[in-house]
Amino acid sequence: MEQRISLITLGVTDLARARSFYEALGWCGTEVEETVFHQAGGMALVLWDRRKLAEDCGLPDSRPAGFGGFGGIALAHNVRTDGEVDALLRLAAAAGGTVTRPAAVNAIGFYSGVFTDPDGHPWEVAHNPGFTLAADGSLILPRFAAPPEDT
Amino acid sequence: MEQRISLITLGVTDLARARSFYEALGWCGTEVEETVFHQAGGMALVLWDRRKLAEDCGLPDSRPAGFGGFGGIALAHNVRTDGEVDALLRLAAAAGGTVTRPAAVNAIGFYSGVFTDPDGHPWEVAHNPGFTLAADGSLILPRFAAPPEDT
Repeated sequence: MEQRISLITLGVTDLARARSFYEALGWCGTEVEETVFHQAGGMALVLWDRRKLAEDCGLPDSRPAGFGGFGGIALAHNVRTDGEVDALLRLAAAAGGTVTRPAAVNAIGFYSGVFTDPDGHPWEVAHNPGFTLAADGSLILPRFAAPPEDT
Repeated sequence: MEQRISLITLGVTDLARARSFYEALGWCGTEVEETVFHQAGGMALVLWDRRKLAEDCGLPDSRPAGFGGFGGIALAHNVRTDGEVDALLRLAAAAGGTVTRPAAVNAIGFYSGVFTDPDGHPWEVAHNPGFTLAADGSLILPRFAAPPEDT
């Protein structure tokens, strides 16, 4: 297995609402057969019906009705300034998202906050100077202080 | 918001188990303060304690104990041949994952299957000739037949 992810598909309950939300944040996608595809660097972010996605995964979706809790995964969007963190959280809230952790300097020492999209998928928005953002937005992990088993 | 994802963090209940699973699939990460970071193209895949991740997102993690159902999101790893799909599903099963949808030609017409990692995160493994894989593994979406509102 090569060390890469080709697509991330977010299960959504209202495709038009989800699509509009990401458009309001500045994303531009293409809808094909009730599925919205967004190119995102060397991968794609996809929006698809949650029930169909669960079925396609061969998994039961027994989330309690109305459950707004944590699904087990978080996405992150890193930016270059604290001001961009604030601006994006404001934009997400205005677009129908929910700020679940207001922006602040976290325990690790960088400025970040979290919003959820209309289907509850969490996005951390972070200005972490420890993680390089290339000109094209690619994230490059630092050479961490060498732990015993990884150099 | 630029159209990109910086990190994906998978909530895990046993970091060593999760790390070993991804190592068995061929991933190489670095552990820093009970968090494992993997560079994955222009982004990073991170493994972190599920409870801490939920808390960091400002979300309750009220997943029923032992619930193995769908969390609302799926990752995909696209490969270049049907044989690679079969081989990776076998490898994932041998490493402690669960094949939740055996490989077959799906309704759209390409060959794929799904496994879940030890924490239940689903990965579709697909050979989809409609999606270009660049030499470096980047996925490039096709120019879809133009829908009315996207050209």
